[in-house]
Amino acid sequence: MRWGSQMTDAQLNATRDAPGTREADNPRDSLLVRFGPDKPLKLDAGVELSPFQIAYKTYGVLNTQRSNAVMICHALTGDQHVASTHPVTGKPGWWETMVGPGRPIDTERYFVICPNVVGACMGTSGPSSINPKTGKPWGLDFPVITIRDMVRAQAMLLDELGIESLFAVAGGSMGGMQVLQWAASYPQRVFAALPIACATRHSAQNIAFHEVGRQAVMADPEWRHGRYLLEGSNPRRGLAVARMGAHITYLSDVALHRKFGRRLQDRSNPTFSFDADFEVESYLRHQGSSFVERFDANSYLYLTRAMDYFDLAADYDGVLAHAFKGAQTRFCVISFTSDWLFPTSDSRAIVHALNAGGGRVSFAEIVTDKGHDAFLLDEPELFAIVRGFLDSAGKARGLAPVKD
Amino acid sequence: MRWGSQMTDAQLNATRDAPGTREADNPRDSLLVRFGPDKPLKLDAGVELSPFQIAYKTYGVLNTQRSNAVMICHALTGDQHVASTHPVTGKPGWWETMVGPGRPIDTERYFVICPNVVGACMGTSGPSSINPKTGKPWGLDFPVITIRDMVRAQAMLLDELGIESLFAVAGGSMGGMQVLQWAASYPQRVFAALPIACATRHSAQNIAFHEVGRQAVMADPEWRHGRYLLEGSNPRRGLAVARMGAHITYLSDVALHRKFGRRLQDRSNPTFSFDADFEVESYLRHQGSSFVERFDANSYLYLTRAMDYFDLAADYDGVLAHAFKGAQTRFCVISFTSDWLFPTSDSRAIVHALNAGGGRVSFAEIVTDKGHDAFLLDEPELFAIVRGFLDSAGKARGLAPVKD
Repeated sequence: MRWGSQMTDAQLNATRDAPGTREADNPRDSLLVRFGPDKPLKLDAGVELSPFQIAYKTYGVLNTQRSNAVMICHALTGDQHVASTHPVTGKPGWWETMVGPGRPIDTERYFVICPNVVGACMGTSGPSSINPKTGKPWGLDFPVITIRDMVRAQAMLLDELGIESLFAVAGGSMGGMQVLQWAASYPQRVFAALPIACATRHSAQNIAFHEVGRQAVMADPEWRHGRYLLEGSNPRRGLAVARMGAHITYLSDVALHRKFGRRLQDRSNPTFSFDADFEVESYLRHQGSSFVERFDANSYLYLTRAMDYFDLAADYDGVLAHAFKGAQTRFCVISFTSDWLFPTSDSRAIVHALNAGGGRVSFAEIVTDKGHDAFLLDEPELFAIVRGFLDSAGKARGLAPVKD
Repeated sequence: MRWGSQMTDAQLNATRDAPGTREADNPRDSLLVRFGPDKPLKLDAGVELSPFQIAYKTYGVLNTQRSNAVMICHALTGDQHVASTHPVTGKPGWWETMVGPGRPIDTERYFVICPNVVGACMGTSGPSSINPKTGKPWGLDFPVITIRDMVRAQAMLLDELGIESLFAVAGGSMGGMQVLQWAASYPQRVFAALPIACATRHSAQNIAFHEVGRQAVMADPEWRHGRYLLEGSNPRRGLAVARMGAHITYLSDVALHRKFGRRLQDRSNPTFSFDADFEVESYLRHQGSSFVERFDANSYLYLTRAMDYFDLAADYDGVLAHAFKGAQTRFCVISFTSDWLFPTSDSRAIVHALNAGGGRVSFAEIVTDKGHDAFLLDEPELFAIVRGFLDSAGKARGLAPVKD
């Protein structure tokens, strides 16, 4: 019998340092804008973040009219490395199928900006960044942030870049929440909006799953009440467990069955142990252990919290339609049939609110068994819809077509 | 800002001792049968468990023909205290709505036997029991057990009680798996079978959720590679996280929305902290912290593993129908529309296999939004179906009706 069944020994000790210690303040392969004391970020929590910084990537060229900028908003565990090699993992950008030369979000036509969100750990100010007042990592002294705070910071970045209005803003999951917030907060600055696989508010079940993940992190004694960077520890196990649980919600029952079924891992009979007998167990353990190599545990707490707090209608007296009242923005709302984290009903609610406000909206529900993660995967229908929507919006915007 | 956000401080330290240290060897309010060296339990793992013991409860009176015995098989976190006060929690039995005088499983008519399963922690031999060879708790030296092992032990209990055949065997979830195994292993001993909210095999998604729970337990340093009882520790935090995650899967998105929605806990505005702002967070934390008061962490590993391993068809060359070939047992298969852990399609597969083997089966899918846990809750349609099925089977069995 083999009892070497914890996820830890070989895998989790590969990195002694928390990832945040490397990228949080001096992100590699990224552009950086620092906002001094004269430009604080006003937060929904009622405090100001100042000074702070935003790390971001750009792809393509801004045209002379400054009219072809596309903002990509990343999801919970994403970052600014949307279409180029990740400096920590060495892997391709997280949306290279969607963004790049000749891709649906075509960097030969559009100027793509992808900022790391406030609260994250890849160079934009977050809990693993150095608190300028103490010279030490913020930890839990970093203020709790919201989706609106993320978008407010992105708008400041846009000001800094001298871009008055975005041709489009696009993103999936937490990225889609930012898209919706962009359209609500800055309707004049968003020509076209692509919220994908998202909702205007987090459901009780989704809050519940996030809470389990946070408790997994905080249950790890290495978390040290959030002071692990100061104390030289790192709650790898807790964060890995959180990631494993969340990852199940990103897939579908059918996709898991298709990928793994009940197949055993490199063996023909069960071991009668707690070793990873089933392929799906090995896969999840890998998801957990690789995630902790690139992500900060406190950022995980802050960003899940921001998603939980998101409730766009609440800012408009509970009437979602008011959030988009009179909006001139063109919307393309996209959902996936097997997404049970943000089911199609959530997207329909967005569409209904836009319809009620007289907004321009097209809606597509894509048939796939890949679950929530479908927005990141090879989904030809998704690519065709995004390309078509942007082509059409580009004509309305007067953008030059791509040279053949 | 309040950061007292971990589930631990007040709640999780209430009990210093692991629950297993109290009940595992000397269960209160239970009957006990000890099987000596002459009666080993032969396990699927290829080893024998000997000596071992089974703790059980009975309700009602065995008739002179010994023909009115009903075996209740409990679920993952259940136990033998099905219809009377729990000795640890002081709460009512877990199925008092179903089992008792005048209830659908009427203890004025039937003799109800409910054993604690092998591998559990309420008095039947399991990892928190004393290993007779060492005089110390088994811990991970306890052999890995299967659903078939549980049922084999229950059959030995039946022999001990001098009961040749059961009038009925009933259970939900892991209990339902045992019901199916009973009908397959001992078709002559089961007159009627009631598998509820279950499946003939665990899905990849269900294995995945279980694996996250196990990793949460094993990530807790207090788990001590399973030796916590020996070392005076107890992986409360890890087990609580496991329970929280599992609990979400027992409910439905709709039920969570109905019960909690996005309501805040005793406050009108979010705290901008990691405190339990939302009611659903408090509820989950309570589920986690109360569970650890009555359950053993290693038992959680063993029982989830047994469920993962369950694949009834695999024992019959992959043909499920062969498991029930020629069975005379009457089946009543029940599922719930909102159960996404064991969806109706799983129950239909059982029905199809029974049909293919010429078995007698009735099937009911009950419309409810309560999710998997519906089998434990106040579901009048469930009660009516169980009562009607047992009445009908009782007539066929020649049982005397209840006196008015």
